[in-house]
Amino acid sequence: MSRSDDTEQTASTCGASEASTDTTSTETSTDTGSGCGASTADESASACGASSSSSESGCGASDDSEEEVGATVEDFDADPGRLVAVGLGPGQPEGMTRRATTALSEAEHIVGYTTYIDLIPDAVTEDAEDIYQTPMCGEVSRTEEAIDRALAGNDVAIVGSGDPNVYALAGLALEILESKGGTASAVDFEVVPGVPAAQSCAARLGAPLVNDTVSISLSDHLTPMPAIESRLHAAAKEGFTLTIYNPWSRKRRENYQKCCEILLEHRDPETPVGIVHGAGREDEQTEIVDLGDLPELGESDLIDMTTTLLVGTDETYVWDDRMVTPRGYETKYDY
Amino acid sequence: MSRSDDTEQTASTCGASEASTDTTSTETSTDTGSGCGASTADESASACGASSSSSESGCGASDDSEEEVGATVEDFDADPGRLVAVGLGPGQPEGMTRRATTALSEAEHIVGYTTYIDLIPDAVTEDAEDIYQTPMCGEVSRTEEAIDRALAGNDVAIVGSGDPNVYALAGLALEILESKGGTASAVDFEVVPGVPAAQSCAARLGAPLVNDTVSISLSDHLTPMPAIESRLHAAAKEGFTLTIYNPWSRKRRENYQKCCEILLEHRDPETPVGIVHGAGREDEQTEIVDLGDLPELGESDLIDMTTTLLVGTDETYVWDDRMVTPRGYETKYDY
Repeated sequence: MSRSDDTEQTASTCGASEASTDTTSTETSTDTGSGCGASTADESASACGASSSSSESGCGASDDSEEEVGATVEDFDADPGRLVAVGLGPGQPEGMTRRATTALSEAEHIVGYTTYIDLIPDAVTEDAEDIYQTPMCGEVSRTEEAIDRALAGNDVAIVGSGDPNVYALAGLALEILESKGGTASAVDFEVVPGVPAAQSCAARLGAPLVNDTVSISLSDHLTPMPAIESRLHAAAKEGFTLTIYNPWSRKRRENYQKCCEILLEHRDPETPVGIVHGAGREDEQTEIVDLGDLPELGESDLIDMTTTLLVGTDETYVWDDRMVTPRGYETKYDY
Repeated sequence: MSRSDDTEQTASTCGASEASTDTTSTETSTDTGSGCGASTADESASACGASSSSSESGCGASDDSEEEVGATVEDFDADPGRLVAVGLGPGQPEGMTRRATTALSEAEHIVGYTTYIDLIPDAVTEDAEDIYQTPMCGEVSRTEEAIDRALAGNDVAIVGSGDPNVYALAGLALEILESKGGTASAVDFEVVPGVPAAQSCAARLGAPLVNDTVSISLSDHLTPMPAIESRLHAAAKEGFTLTIYNPWSRKRRENYQKCCEILLEHRDPETPVGIVHGAGREDEQTEIVDLGDLPELGESDLIDMTTTLLVGTDETYVWDDRMVTPRGYETKYDY
């Protein structure tokens, strides 16, 4: 297999001046760090496998330059190959499903962010003809590349951590495919689901999310902040648990503070909040704190682009270092 | 390995008169059908792997008898073994993560609902000393059994489909453990996350859930209906996509109709809704309909205990038989 490189395209997307040209390196922190100006961010770890959402917000916040999508379906005369969007799950190989492993083994081309590609065991990728990887950012051009390769007749897998439906590329792939005049059926478009960050972080905390629940991203790159605030109010008012993706970045510290403010407007300051930082990374850290302590943690090392927050309800309690949201069995059964 | 049986306990929980005594059978429809009065329900398939939520609602709706939890930590003099709650994912073996497979291979005892146990490949369970399986319902007694076995010194895996944090047993396990005077740390309690139904159903539909999203169960067994209605209003008013778990059962047809009514109060009748019926089963059926058509489908074969609904936002559209909720890239990028 060969590993190709697209740093130029990526650099222009992110506005980075020093993008590394060595995308085959297993040490990817240089790429991610210098590529997008998101100094501590590592897309793979952020949000326990929240796919590309962090990188988007990190990139877009620093540079709103547009990216043009080029070739259309008319430019390809081959019979299209397949296009599969594969969710890798939490990031470690053991978090992948067998279906994901199979999809990657069968793909002729594998496309993804360098850090994700590096997470896939070599045995799974060794039969691939080509692996196209780009550093952080460049979701649009990377996805377009995957689609062009499928339209050119190759069986392509585009990968991300977590699940392709959680702040991730399943939709972008379909949108770009449509804009190119292709169809989902022509490339036999398939989504292979993965374990989302909410679930892999919840597992670390015990049982915080067992009832009705909400996922909200604090990145205002693609969703305006007033909409995010309104959603936070609506969810916090009701008995939902909340998973907060992308809680903090240098460019949007105030979103985090606003979120804390809204949560505290509706919930007791003693409501347990699970904080999972850098899940699956060396600097992984899991803590359970009171909601009231959240604002002051905004500037601590615990809260950054790699953090996911799990907010309990009024019924959630902490027991033996675990967060437990009762399902309500205790109202029906005697134990 | 041996397979033990608990039909008596299960029958009393569910109020069934004809519970099958053959839990080793691979044909489990008799058990699930006759056990709980949920005629078409099959816990494993319902909600694409939504774990035990369907069975609870099916059971509890017909019988609210209490189940007493017996032994406490004092009754065991062995050093406790381990207790792992394992999410199997969508139900088919290929949807399991490697971590789940490993956890099951290492377990001395495996505890679960018969249909789930049958889904696990024999190669994974063959080293287990004992497999304790019960038909549908009996979550509390089954979970207690798992805990008792761990307290008695065995390494135990308790399994469910989907993810242990999605309407599932992670919380119940901790609650019962606490009531027995045990601690999570003494049994080294661990949750192995799995792919939830929302994700496995979304994958079938394309990209319906890529933004902020809400999961709501229409089962009012453990959550009062007014709370469910209030949550539906709150979510439908905002730009959330919704995954509706347990949309229908014979005993709560009116919850389904009420849900449709609330959604239609806030969203256009043409809003796309993905319906996934019997995911992973022989009678699997996936359809995308207009929200306005949902009420009349309530009494069709498409909507039952094995169905999950994915409700789009005002921006969701249908293209080439896929549901696409745009992430908003089109506002930033030109493609």
